[in-house]
Amino acid sequence: MNREKEVYGMEIIEGGVTAAKGFEAAAAEAQIKYKNRTDMALIYSEKPCKTAGTFTRNVVKAAPVKWDRAVVESKVKSQAVIVNSGIANACTGEEGMNYCEETAKTAARILNIDSKGVLVGSTGVIGMQLPIDRIKAGIGKLAEAKKADLASGTAAAQAIMTTDTKKKEAAVTVEIGGKTVTIGGMSKGSGMIHPNMCTMLAFITTDAKITKKALQIALSEDVEDTYNMISVDGDTSTNDTVLLLANGMAGNAKIRYGTPEFEIFKKALHYVNETLAKSMAADGEGATALFEAKIVGADTKEQAKMLAKSIVCSNLTKTALAGHDANWGRILCAMGYSGAQFDPEKVDLYFESEAGKIQIIENGTAADYSEEKATEILSQSKVTVTADIKAGEAQATAWGCDLTHEYISINADYRS
Amino acid sequence: MNREKEVYGMEIIEGGVTAAKGFEAAAAEAQIKYKNRTDMALIYSEKPCKTAGTFTRNVVKAAPVKWDRAVVESKVKSQAVIVNSGIANACTGEEGMNYCEETAKTAARILNIDSKGVLVGSTGVIGMQLPIDRIKAGIGKLAEAKKADLASGTAAAQAIMTTDTKKKEAAVTVEIGGKTVTIGGMSKGSGMIHPNMCTMLAFITTDAKITKKALQIALSEDVEDTYNMISVDGDTSTNDTVLLLANGMAGNAKIRYGTPEFEIFKKALHYVNETLAKSMAADGEGATALFEAKIVGADTKEQAKMLAKSIVCSNLTKTALAGHDANWGRILCAMGYSGAQFDPEKVDLYFESEAGKIQIIENGTAADYSEEKATEILSQSKVTVTADIKAGEAQATAWGCDLTHEYISINADYRS
Repeated sequence: MNREKEVYGMEIIEGGVTAAKGFEAAAAEAQIKYKNRTDMALIYSEKPCKTAGTFTRNVVKAAPVKWDRAVVESKVKSQAVIVNSGIANACTGEEGMNYCEETAKTAARILNIDSKGVLVGSTGVIGMQLPIDRIKAGIGKLAEAKKADLASGTAAAQAIMTTDTKKKEAAVTVEIGGKTVTIGGMSKGSGMIHPNMCTMLAFITTDAKITKKALQIALSEDVEDTYNMISVDGDTSTNDTVLLLANGMAGNAKIRYGTPEFEIFKKALHYVNETLAKSMAADGEGATALFEAKIVGADTKEQAKMLAKSIVCSNLTKTALAGHDANWGRILCAMGYSGAQFDPEKVDLYFESEAGKIQIIENGTAADYSEEKATEILSQSKVTVTADIKAGEAQATAWGCDLTHEYISINADYRS
Repeated sequence: MNREKEVYGMEIIEGGVTAAKGFEAAAAEAQIKYKNRTDMALIYSEKPCKTAGTFTRNVVKAAPVKWDRAVVESKVKSQAVIVNSGIANACTGEEGMNYCEETAKTAARILNIDSKGVLVGSTGVIGMQLPIDRIKAGIGKLAEAKKADLASGTAAAQAIMTTDTKKKEAAVTVEIGGKTVTIGGMSKGSGMIHPNMCTMLAFITTDAKITKKALQIALSEDVEDTYNMISVDGDTSTNDTVLLLANGMAGNAKIRYGTPEFEIFKKALHYVNETLAKSMAADGEGATALFEAKIVGADTKEQAKMLAKSIVCSNLTKTALAGHDANWGRILCAMGYSGAQFDPEKVDLYFESEAGKIQIIENGTAADYSEEKATEILSQSKVTVTADIKAGEAQATAWGCDLTHEYISINADYRS
């Protein structure tokens, strides 16, 4: 971050979706599936926004995914996002699609905005229909409660949680053409996390003035290195969605694709996306540790990504981490079945955390290391494994978490 | 099986690797990693055998995998297989390869056979070197103890277990050209089970007289529908090996590829392979239920396989089964990210077990079913989910197991 600050004047700030100019948010209790918790959120922009989005590649797409994709692909600007937790509105057929439309129309009427630009998001149990009357009542509450302060952004981030244990927000400012541009976001995701070309629910807002093309490219490219590099359980959701809304209120000269200003914007966006993505991995269902896998010395970035992701996706590496056990054979095994080619007999491997760094494997076989030290390193709340495959200069990082009893407890009776 | 019996005179019989004529087996305590358990096994054939094999596609291949592949690809016949549990002899470099050779030479000397045809197998922890002196001492014990009775076959099947809770054997006879041909086998596998073009350790013996080409083709083809269709945890092992030894002692006219006799042999082999494969899935680490996924009405077999396998591989479908929870959205979700195309809005889905059969999904959305009945069906020790995707005539079946607390317990401290 220090280098980014020097070069781009980037600053990490407090806040989430309300950090950027002109954005308001709210949360409400709508009793979608549970009582005594907030379960609806609103993001509202004073001025209409250009939007970009990336969505699940799952063949089974939830109704809100289909709805939002159509909105993002249209020329209509957006002024509001309505999100609910508890029920995913997936596998709900035509009835589910109709509820998206009713939600958008209700929000448009109450907020006095264009219904064709209202985005929706849902997360929770698959296969149940939304209680549309409670959704409509919730929209009324949200419209009344919406505010531009950071606390309202945080309330929204809390309302979209399901099995998440922590709300997830990030925000950053950056100087573009002498103007301060802010990007902030929130996300949720803890189980069924294995994003494919997109992620669970993440909502990013910015006051940057930027072309729609540049906005979409910045998002699509960065998603590959952030949300698409995390995994909690290998299950790609039916609802994965990242939406990026830009209202242009920072007053900067319009950012165009391919310019130096575009690169600066992308750096700032990357900070927000990576922070939210890592938060989701660290807060994976039942997780006690963030598990970071770095591949260095790869021939190609693609190869590095396959290897890194295979390490964090393995049930066996993840249970070994849960047991603070330096069972490194499982890591090499996971690299071996990743689909990427490499020479196992060249691999050097290191474990690293707050407790220190040690080499575990040298040229594919056991290095001389202390099991006690390894256990100490693996007992921290963030553990990094770095594998040098000595083939080239490319590298990649993936993020996951340990696999614990608590994951089983959460998922063996999630619906009850 | 009734039809097979009628058409091919196939009979399921007791026994495993010693069921076929001329095969002997033994087990021994060699203290490879643990005390007070048998941990070495021998399969011996009175006459030299033609061999076929399939091996792991993991880039990281254990030393015994490399050794056996060379033996199977050579023209040398085999008379013995030496297997140890406790240590996998994987990621052990040149030293590990040398131990394969020393094992083969020691066995050849003691058994008075050709060392170039001695096959080896190892399973257990990755990264540790074998205690070669104990291996050698073990071979002496095995040579002394070897017998042709069924109990010796069972003892061998027990000696190769690691986290397995049950020994895995199967045997069958079939009439080929007026002669009774027997095929028997044993396998082990409970964790790190996600075979890719091969499987964990399985050893099949037969007294059939058959060409080497026909033997390899029969094995390679059948592995695709049996071992390659099971998964316990998605982790493809470094040691996966299936060996098939044929000593020709049944006295049948030699079976050649492409003949009706070849098809009969394949049917019998399929019974043994499928039985052993399903045993491994049912005995997955921590499992309480065999999880069978059938896809019917598919366009192609490949599509059906991708969908079936995706269902049994999902951590979320597996934890739902552990909780006896009819959380069918997770099944549709897993089908959706399998990589196979299909129309989610055409899917019918059924749950079936000893307790009955009910329809859960009709045309992609919830059917009208009783949650209580669903829970009862999902509480049995073998549960089948059938999805009809109404696209064509192809079908496929995959086998897995539920994901329980016990899996975490076993793997969070496997090495200790």
